Parts: sequence; structure tokens; C-alpha cells
Amino acid sequence: AVDMVAEGLIGKTEAIARINPRQLDQVLHPTLDPDAEPEVLGFGLPASPGAISGRIVFNSADAKIQSERGNKVILVRTETSPEDISGMHFASGIVTTRGGITSHAAVVARGMGTPCVSGAGFLAVDCLNKTLCAAGKTFFEGEFITIDGASGKIMKGKVPTIKPEFSNEFSRFMEWVDEIRKLGVRANIENPADVKNALAFGAEGIGLYRTEHMFFHPDRINFMREIIIAVDEKKRRKALNKLLHFQRQDFSDLFTNVGKLPVAIRLFDPPLHEFLPRSDDEILEVANFSGLSSSEVKVRTGQLSERNPMLGHRGCRLGVTYPEIYEMQIRAIFEAAVDIISSNMTVVPQIMIPLISKKSEFEFIKAIVDDTAEAVKREKGLFVDYYLGTMIELPNAAICSGEIAIGSDFMSFGTNDLTQTTLGLSRDDTSSIIQTYLEKSIFLADPFVSLDKDGVGELVKIATQKSRAVRPNIQLGASGEHGGDASSVQFFHEVGLDYVSCSPYRLPIARLAAAQAEMGIKKYCN
Amino acid sequence: AVDMVAEGLIGKTEAIARINPRQLDQVLHPTLDPDAEPEVLGFGLPASPGAISGRIVFNSADAKIQSERGNKVILVRTETSPEDISGMHFASGIVTTRGGITSHAAVVARGMGTPCVSGAGFLAVDCLNKTLCAAGKTFFEGEFITIDGASGKIMKGKVPTIKPEFSNEFSRFMEWVDEIRKLGVRANIENPADVKNALAFGAEGIGLYRTEHMFFHPDRINFMREIIIAVDEKKRRKALNKLLHFQRQDFSDLFTNVGKLPVAIRLFDPPLHEFLPRSDDEILEVANFSGLSSSEVKVRTGQLSERNPMLGHRGCRLGVTYPEIYEMQIRAIFEAAVDIISSNMTVVPQIMIPLISKKSEFEFIKAIVDDTAEAVKREKGLFVDYYLGTMIELPNAAICSGEIAIGSDFMSFGTNDLTQTTLGLSRDDTSSIIQTYLEKSIFLADPFVSLDKDGVGELVKIATQKSRAVRPNIQLGASGEHGGDASSVQFFHEVGLDYVSCSPYRLPIARLAAAQAEMGIKKYCN
Repeated sequence: AVDMVAEGLIGKTEAIARINPRQLDQVLHPTLDPDAEPEVLGFGLPASPGAISGRIVFNSADAKIQSERGNKVILVRTETSPEDISGMHFASGIVTTRGGITSHAAVVARGMGTPCVSGAGFLAVDCLNKTLCAAGKTFFEGEFITIDGASGKIMKGKVPTIKPEFSNEFSRFMEWVDEIRKLGVRANIENPADVKNALAFGAEGIGLYRTEHMFFHPDRINFMREIIIAVDEKKRRKALNKLLHFQRQDFSDLFTNVGKLPVAIRLFDPPLHEFLPRSDDEILEVANFSGLSSSEVKVRTGQLSERNPMLGHRGCRLGVTYPEIYEMQIRAIFEAAVDIISSNMTVVPQIMIPLISKKSEFEFIKAIVDDTAEAVKREKGLFVDYYLGTMIELPNAAICSGEIAIGSDFMSFGTNDLTQTTLGLSRDDTSSIIQTYLEKSIFLADPFVSLDKDGVGELVKIATQKSRAVRPNIQLGASGEHGGDASSVQFFHEVGLDYVSCSPYRLPIARLAAAQAEMGIKKYCN
Repeated sequence: AVDMVAEGLIGKTEAIARINPRQLDQVLHPTLDPDAEPEVLGFGLPASPGAISGRIVFNSADAKIQSERGNKVILVRTETSPEDISGMHFASGIVTTRGGITSHAAVVARGMGTPCVSGAGFLAVDCLNKTLCAAGKTFFEGEFITIDGASGKIMKGKVPTIKPEFSNEFSRFMEWVDEIRKLGVRANIENPADVKNALAFGAEGIGLYRTEHMFFHPDRINFMREIIIAVDEKKRRKALNKLLHFQRQDFSDLFTNVGKLPVAIRLFDPPLHEFLPRSDDEILEVANFSGLSSSEVKVRTGQLSERNPMLGHRGCRLGVTYPEIYEMQIRAIFEAAVDIISSNMTVVPQIMIPLISKKSEFEFIKAIVDDTAEAVKREKGLFVDYYLGTMIELPNAAICSGEIAIGSDFMSFGTNDLTQTTLGLSRDDTSSIIQTYLEKSIFLADPFVSLDKDGVGELVKIATQKSRAVRPNIQLGASGEHGGDASSVQFFHEVGLDYVSCSPYRLPIARLAAAQAEMGIKKYCN
């Protein structure tokens, strides 16, 4: 298309109109060699694009060992949890047998740009004996498979792939796109180091900085476990103090990398449940670490475990039940900001509260933020300007957004969670149900891939109207995975959001989709 | 108050205005002797009213044994599951350490009229060693405790209680109430035998007939397990055929007992997850029963288990993924109805689809209902008239209710589930969070006890307007536990619903609250 513009055959806008945003995945990621004739074992969900071959491993420790030996590995798990993240970093590809398109594995893989196939229920995985059965064949650790995260295909052996080309033409094309689009594009990231990558893909800011990795890091998870196991505030504060300097350093790095661009830091969000020690070894470790007996740790773990953690003790509820966790995070943000400003750099942190349901809850957390800001100001003699906002990811928050908006500088629709609660469909469990619903034409698209406009979209629309009515200049964004889906981006443009935020690797799609939305082109939105 | 009317001191309406609906709990259930000075061990949630003393037991089998020996027992569990129902029938009181006011234990206990305290997190229960620790004391199986389900209080030993009096005054008072109220009152039940009880408490129909007990019955649960373990439709149909005659008999009994009153039968709803065999013994039993190997049953169980069952494979999703389950139920309903009509009795079944999210899903299930009705008509030569409706219990359904209403004769708001998804708060897990939110004044009332009007209520209002706009004569009801809460009943009256439906024992409260709503009395609604 760029060549045709150069030859004067078509104009820039015509070039933009011709490209299907989904095609960009092929430009940005390795693809299967079209001449290859692979032996296909089966299909899972296309969770993160890119085609890659590697040796099968069944846990994070093996991923590290094999990878350090110079082997490319495909990590195969039933599902992943935050503790697998270090292993996922070593994997060239990821396969899970359960979990949908916004499961933990899928979201993390997209963030890393690692090819991933999720919900591959046809695979019978035995992580203990390290075998994998598919299509009547058994595969052992170390054997090669190839996965294509763009189609969800899993194949036997090494299948030839074609590398992507980041050509000058691509850069020029994206410049034209950016000239046209009005909708802002920001990135969802979870490490200060991700900022560089996000900017390379065209991010105009960080729409969602996840702070969870700070707690799941192997050095720190025991502090976190000590915090949640602790029965009184004093013990929790002691354990939290140990985490404060880690967090401050993280935020300091983040602010340095981001510079003047907006950066929305989401306070601690994951289900407390995920931090609970599970195996006897872990329980013993936590007991030793915290000075409790194993049986005390077990009792406390039993009290805190949940049947439906997605609807449980998570998000800002943790800020209400354990205000000291949020206090520590907010203090780390402001102290880091003071350091940055003292070094003559600029930062205006945006603090984002997850899983808000109603005004009274928002005001409870807002008081913690404001009080901590005030305390740091008194101690350091420097006031840090900041914006306070919320994630809108519960139907209740969308309905009550007129009240919440009064105290909010910005709001970001967390459309993964909003889809989950509006439809009552778990992101972790329902990949097989969604597959059946697609086959029977009840769903026309996976609602976690492409925003369901009738229900979830209607809530976004209602919340936009209600919040703009009380605060016309409120900044509104969407920071679910839908920010990287053309049809959803079109919708967000029409509703009048200010920006979308998605994984860095999906930003080119978001940019092109936003430009096409501005041009009124809808043909790629099905 | 009735005496004062008789003496001419006040009028009937003044008498009605004077009684707080909550006071009726004292008339209907045993209460603690106000002169007693019990040793209070602690408080849980007031899950089902009534004060009762009994010997502690820790599982359903022991409840049965002790009860058959003539002992009154209090069943103490971490939480209950549908498999505990037989044991719950033998218990005079129920205590759970986890779970909120609409947890399984709470809902079942209210349905049975059995006193219950749920979410008593202060108790350390060891079901294996059959001990209970509270307030620094250890209690063993067989020791006496007393619980007050109206206040959530748990006490040591036998505390004197006062029996309720169902006086003539009470009946007369309720007659006056019924003369005034416009809002209909129906009952939520789960056995044909419950109908009598429901009518005694003033039900004008059955607003929610739960069909789950039909599957959890010890004789039948293995059939159900066979159905969900079966990997192909043929095997499922074979197992389902074995359940058909049980179901037909249930419905036949139900219709006989209900007579001409409306009866809404909710199709199979619970999470599939609840039926999965857990222990090795259960797995072996299912393997023997179904002719599979234990390892096959284990693999299938692993595939079907869920991290968030409340957001998973349940409600009408089961009707989509396993249409033959719904087909069997619908066939049983129509065949039972044919028998009733052939015996010159009347019945117009209302078939209610749970957990609908959108129109396409409703139409998929509607086709199964209509086709099965047609098939039974062809076979029996008799057409059974029926009404088809849905539960509105997902925010998506509320938002899309205008589209769903077109094909629905009635709709019933399932406010327990609607609260769960709108607020993103699990009914099973969040009793401690809700307690904290009440203490910190973020919630003014437990949203599972008293409808949250800002968010959940707004969705009820939106759905009422949208559905009446396309179908002005649609019958609208509310069948969550909120139907027995005065403030919620007031709200349903104001929104313009046709009826509320609740546990039989809460019907007098609903009736009085409805009359006061009609009179514009709001003072008891806080």
C-alpha cells in the first residue's frame, strides 16, 4: 500500500482504508511458512500472536533450566498463576489447556509479546509425569512442537516460520495513521522496563501500570504472604515496611522511563486468594518466615481461601480491609515522585483505584490517598501534584458513575472485568462454553476479544454520559484487552472516549483501528 | 394492636402502620427468653430466624444418627453444599463458619424454617476431630449450644427459649394486611411437599420452584454424575432417561398440590461443578456406575472443575451445552401436565429459564421448550398451554431486557444473583468483607439482605421500563431473598412489579411490607 502511494496510484487515506488491522499481526509477529505442511494436533484459542517452535517443558523451573542451556522452550501448563511469571519470561511460547482469551496466561503472554495458545482442552497434560497426549500420540519433555498464537493451531515437530519485517514502509504507514486518528493510545504494562517497548509501538502514555508483579517476585512473595496471614495491623505494617523500598524503587524507575507522559498506576488488585500458600512446603516456609506455627498458617489460609476469588477479596476491597497495603503503595508513589521532582524531572502520577463499586467506597479510598499525599508533603516539604481516578469494571460502578465521577479526575473502563460481571462469565473457566456459544451462533464473537456492544457496551455508554454530565472534562479511557481489537476500538471512538490502552504489541492495531474509526470505515469490524 | 382495634382505640390501618415487619419474626419463630443470661460465644450472620438449643454435630450423617436417637442437633459446618441437604433436614439448627446471608446454608435453612447462623468466622471448626473452638473454649460433639438465628448470636449450653404463638389475632391481622396490599406474594420452594406450608403462610402461587433437589437426591446423584461425565450425547441421553420418571412424578405431585395457582418451574440451574465427584471413593463409585476407569473419571472431572463456579458452567448455559438435560426436564413437565389435565384437573405450567444473558440465548432455549411441547402434543394428542419466562439475574439481561421481553410471558428478577454480579461480590465468600464494609459505613445494609437501590435497584428499574415498553402486560416479579425484606419489598412496589416471591416463612413479612408500601409507610424500611 505504501508503494502504491509512492507511485501516486492511491492516496494516503485510501492506503489506510485498504489495510485490515488484523493483518498487522502478520507484520509484527513471525508467521507459519505458507509452504509448510505441518501435522496439526489440534486447536486452542489464539491468545497471543506469533508462530514459534520449541521443546516442551511442563513447569517454570524447567523453562528456566532449558532456556539457560540455549534451548527454545514451549511452556505447557493447565493454567498459569502469577507465580509462573518468571518461567513465562524464559519461554518462547506458552500453551494452556484451560482459560480463555483473557486468562492470566493470555494476558501476560500478550504483554510479553510471546506467542500463546490458551484453552487447548484437547491436550491431556500430565505435569507430574511430564507427558502430553494429543491426537492419539504421547509427547515427552524436550520434544519439539510448534504453535501459532494467531490461529490457535498446535503442531507436531518444528514447522518453518517466517520472520516479521519492521520495514520503513511500516513506520511511514503508521505515521499517516497517527495523523488521522483522534483517539489516544496508551499501553498496559507491568514493569518499568516495559515502557521502552510501549513507546516503540507508539504508546502516548501508560494507561494501566499493574503493580502486582512487585508482590509476586520470588524475593517478595513471602513478605506479602506474611502480610495477609498476619492477624493484626501491627504485624502487617512491619511486613509492609519491608516492601516499601522495593516499591519506591520500582516507581522511581517507572517515572524516569515515562518522563512527561501520563502514567496511570493501578493500586494492588489481584485476589488475595492467589497469594495463599498451597503446598505443605509453602505453608512451612510461610510459618518459618512469619514466626507462626504451620497449623496457625493453615487455619488462616482456610479462613482466607475462596470459592469464587474473582468475586471475592480483591481490588479496592483489599484497600478497605487492609488500608495499610494501599497506604504503603501510595506512600511509595509519592516518595518516588518527590525524588524525581527533586532531580528536576517532571512527573504527575495518576493513581487508579481498581474494582470500585460505589461512591462511599471511592471516598474511603480517596481519603487514604489524600491523607498519604499530605503526610509525604509534610515530611518532605514538597507537594506532588497528582490525579486520582478509578477503574470502572463493575456494572454497579457504571450505573453509579455519575456519583463517582464527581471526585475522579479520570476513569478507565476495565472491560475484561466488566465483561466478566456483566455477562456473569468467568475469564478463567468459560473458554469451552464460549466455543459452544460461537458454534451455535449465540455469540457472534468471543466477548472477551470483541466488546459485547448490546450489554457491556451499553454500560460503557451509560457511564460515559453520566460521568461527562457531572464533569465534562473528565478523562475517559478503556484499558481492557478490547483496546487492541478493531471493532471495540471503533465502538470506543463512537462513544467518545479519550483513549484506549492495550498490550504494547497490539498498539499498531489500535492506532490503525482508531484512524479508520475517524474515517468512518467499518468493514474490518466484524 | 388487634386488641386495640377490637376496643375501638385505633383503626385497622393504624394497627397495620404500627407493626414493624421485622417484629413478625418474633411471632413466627421461637425467641430467646429475655430473662436468660446466656454466655455468648460470639456472633455470626442472622441467616434464618429462630432460637434453638441442640447438641453439636459436624456432618450430615451424624445429624441423622443423633436425630433418630431423639436428640435435637445443631449442624456445624464450614459451609454446606447440596449434598448436605438430607442432613440439614435432620438438624434443628445450622451454623456455618463461612458464607453470607444468601449462601447455600442460609437459603436452604430459611426455606426449611430452620434457625441458622452463617459466616460465624470466629469459630474454629475441626470437622475431622469433631471439635469447635470459640472464646478460648473447646466444644466436642454432643455438647449443647444455643443459637439465635434472628440476631446471629451463638451461646454456650442450653438457653431457655419462648415458643411462638400463632394466635387468631395474628390471622385476623394478616387478613387486614391482605385487604390493603396490591403487590402479589408467592413462595420459593424446592419440594412438592413445601406447597402446603407455602399456602399456610399466605402464598398466592409458587414464584420459584427449584428443580435441583431432584438431582442431588442420593438415589439420583450418580445418574447426574454419569450425565456430566459422559463425553457423548448418546450416553447422556441414556442416563437422562433414567431420571425422566423421577422428574415426571415430582412435577405431577407439584401440580396436584398447587392446583390452579401459578407455579414457575426454574429449569436446572446449579454450577455443574457442584456435582463433580471429589473424594477417591466418589470417583471410584462414579467409575463403577458409569463403566469408565477411575483415571478417565479423574481426567473428565479435571476438565469440568472451575475456579469460579458462580461465573461458570451453570444456569441456561447447561441447556445450551447439554440441551438433552433441559429437554428431559421440559418433557417431564409436559408429560406430568398431560396426566393432570387427563384427570380433569387444571394446570398451566410456567417454565422459567435461569441465568439468561441475551436474546439469542433465550431464543435457543425457547426453541427447545417449544419443540418439546410440540413433540409431547404429537405423542399424547393433548396440547398443554404454558407460559415461558426468564430469570433476570445478570446485568446483561437487565440491559437487554427489552429484546428478551418480546418472547417472554413473564420475568422474575433473581436479585441474589443480580446483586452478586452487579457488585461483583460472591454470595459464598464475602461475609467478612461485607461485615467490614458495614463497620466502615461503606454499606448501610448488607446488599444480600436489603436490595442495593442505587445500582442493583437501578437495573431492576431499567429492565422494568424496557420490558413493559415492548410488552405492557408482561408479568414481573422478584424471586430473590429480598422478597422477604421490608425495604426491598417497598422498592419493588414502587418500581411496579406484580409480585415478590420468597421463603414461605418470610411471607408474612412480605405481606405486611407490601401493605405498608401501598399505604406509603416507609418508617420500617431502614
